[in-house]
Amino acid sequence: MEAFSDGVIAILITIMVLELRQPHGAEFSDLRSVYPSLLAYVLSFVNLGIYWNNHHHLLKTVHRVSAAMLWANLGLLFSLSLFPFATSWMSKNGFGKDTVLSYGVVMLMAAISFTILQSVIVASQAPDDGLRRALGRDLKGKLSAATYVVSIPLALVWRWGSIGLFVAVALVWFIPDRRVQSYVESSLNSDGQQV
Amino acid sequence: MEAFSDGVIAILITIMVLELRQPHGAEFSDLRSVYPSLLAYVLSFVNLGIYWNNHHHLLKTVHRVSAAMLWANLGLLFSLSLFPFATSWMSKNGFGKDTVLSYGVVMLMAAISFTILQSVIVASQAPDDGLRRALGRDLKGKLSAATYVVSIPLALVWRWGSIGLFVAVALVWFIPDRRVQSYVESSLNSDGQQV
Amino acid sequence: MEAFSDGVIAILITIMVLELRQPHGAEFSDLRSVYPSLLAYVLSFVNLGIYWNNHHHLLKTVHRVSAAMLWANLGLLFSLSLFPFATSWMSKNGFGKDTVLSYGVVMLMAAISFTILQSVIVASQAPDDGLRRALGRDLKGKLSAATYVVSIPLALVWRWGSIGLFVAVALVWFIPDRRVQSYVESSLNSDGQQV
Amino acid sequence: MEAFSDGVIAILITIMVLELRQPHGAEFSDLRSVYPSLLAYVLSFVNLGIYWNNHHHLLKTVHRVSAAMLWANLGLLFSLSLFPFATSWMSKNGFGKDTVLSYGVVMLMAAISFTILQSVIVASQAPDDGLRRALGRDLKGKLSAATYVVSIPLALVWRWGSIGLFVAVALVWFIPDRRVQSYVESSLNSDGQQV
Repeated sequence: MEAFSDGVIAILITIMVLELRQPHGAEFSDLRSVYPSLLAYVLSFVNLGIYWNNHHHLLKTVHRVSAAMLWANLGLLFSLSLFPFATSWMSKNGFGKDTVLSYGVVMLMAAISFTILQSVIVASQAPDDGLRRALGRDLKGKLSAATYVVSIPLALVWRWGSIGLFVAVALVWFIPDRRVQSYVESSLNSDGQQV
Repeated sequence: MEAFSDGVIAILITIMVLELRQPHGAEFSDLRSVYPSLLAYVLSFVNLGIYWNNHHHLLKTVHRVSAAMLWANLGLLFSLSLFPFATSWMSKNGFGKDTVLSYGVVMLMAAISFTILQSVIVASQAPDDGLRRALGRDLKGKLSAATYVVSIPLALVWRWGSIGLFVAVALVWFIPDRRVQSYVESSLNSDGQQV
Repeated sequence: MEAFSDGVIAILITIMVLELRQPHGAEFSDLRSVYPSLLAYVLSFVNLGIYWNNHHHLLKTVHRVSAAMLWANLGLLFSLSLFPFATSWMSKNGFGKDTVLSYGVVMLMAAISFTILQSVIVASQAPDDGLRRALGRDLKGKLSAATYVVSIPLALVWRWGSIGLFVAVALVWFIPDRRVQSYVESSLNSDGQQV
Repeated sequence: MEAFSDGVIAILITIMVLELRQPHGAEFSDLRSVYPSLLAYVLSFVNLGIYWNNHHHLLKTVHRVSAAMLWANLGLLFSLSLFPFATSWMSKNGFGKDTVLSYGVVMLMAAISFTILQSVIVASQAPDDGLRRALGRDLKGKLSAATYVVSIPLALVWRWGSIGLFVAVALVWFIPDRRVQSYVESSLNSDGQQV
């Protein structure tokens, strides 16, 4: 399951480069038309990088794959697969308000499906399992989802505010989820395993 | 063999996103032209997800890869590789009857090549092996193939009926093949192995 | 090295599907323009499948990766990476004689770089190693390369003859290299290993 | 981390083939328009091959993945992901001076992010660890970065000089980093491990 997911995320993160259309001329000034695409690409690259990172740590805690996990995982991959489309639509239309709102919806879908996958995995473990304790009330996850919910209507009145929220959440998550990570480290207690 | 197959399916499932052409404007109303593509994308994503899932469980029962298996596997991958083309042709032409029929043909080809791969694997195992018993008469597989056979002529007279059959079969398979899964679980008897 | 190569070949084999351009209409008769592409796609799919298959068996015999092997391997991947371009050029120009000749050149390049990789691997092994004996004089490899050499000038006078030679060589290789395969099996003597 | 990185680099190295646009006719003379693309493709293929190779050896020395490493690694992947764009822009505009300069900037970014990843990994190891000694003052890495720095302004006055520098650095690195490789070999002391 991990290899397949890693493959899908690796492909998603790289096919966004294909959307970076070539400028029409060979001068630096021609690159100006590419800047919005490039900025949106950086934002989506970082977001997919965060998901890959947290997903990677989360799957390390799975001892037994169930059917529910496989489908929750495919749900997450489906949400993530909409990133290239949303990124491209937003950046090629000058960050129009409807496109920013759609990007927020895709971000929210991804956050919700990650939470579902996380819940399915926690539910499959013993009640006293470390991952459950490590996640606690998952404040960071809940706050992120709430921020995306706010960013959606905000896009209609102040789209740059929404984009600011996307960047802010990305910065917060840039540091990987230490709760899960430290749980993985303590439960594995082996060196090479985590690579 | 599994890593290569996983790679191919992961790529197929994601390159379909590239076929989601951008709408011409930046308004929500411009997204309307994308809806058929999006619906067809969801259908094909779920179908490829089902194949990945069942393929993943099936390969877990293989102890020894033979030349016949490698080619049966490549045959399955070839059938699956026609999904992006068939999906795109169908969705960009308003689900025209010939395009729906072609989608049904690709679905049938995939079902047949999966059955061939399954037979080759079963044939390579001892007569009293659990997989053979677990599959039994493979009613679900045979019914699916029969449904696809029906969907092909049906497309000419009532294309939405065919699409309904595709969705129905997908829903039935959404639950992974418990017969194979439980055989894998009982024969491995190890926890982390299945990830 | 194997995972990376498998990844590259998996991507090459699937991106060729992207080259299957959509027909302009939604009728079966519109598919006629796709037939040449589809036939060329099948030929290249089978050829890449054969290379993946033989490459997979060849790498199983490697105990220690050297710098020379890494570069010989990249050379093979480079040759294989020209398949989508050559396939697409040939099929979109009605199998014109220059395009068929170019396809033959790419086939020859691939055959030569596979032979180089094989020689580098054999050279790294003890003189009495089984792989060397198993390959023997590698008649099949030499005959294939010779056939490609013949197919190149032949394309200028009788292009369908060249295409017939491509198909003939593919049919011969369709059966994986039993010499290497049986060596792998006898030297591993373990069941699950080969998957 | 290694599987994901290998996946991303494998995809980058192959999607560059998609940028090799088809010539407009079916004659050899029509291929002339493809030559610049093909040459630039070879250069970038070799460069990405070098990074994959060195990255592969570098990660073999990692015993414990930290958050800093994950992000340094993503930084490297981001820099490498700009290769297809830079390659395509340069080759489709007749190696115009601004495009050559941009290619140099991407090369420099990749060199810097590789050095950062290397430093993060070295910093995570014991002071007397072999990798640190093996790298020594990393003269080759520093010289390469310095060469890229020189190539950037040089592109404005003599773009073929810059391209010559790119080729020269690639040739120097064509031989993988024996310092790291020999450290890996001595510390593993196991045969099959390195494949």
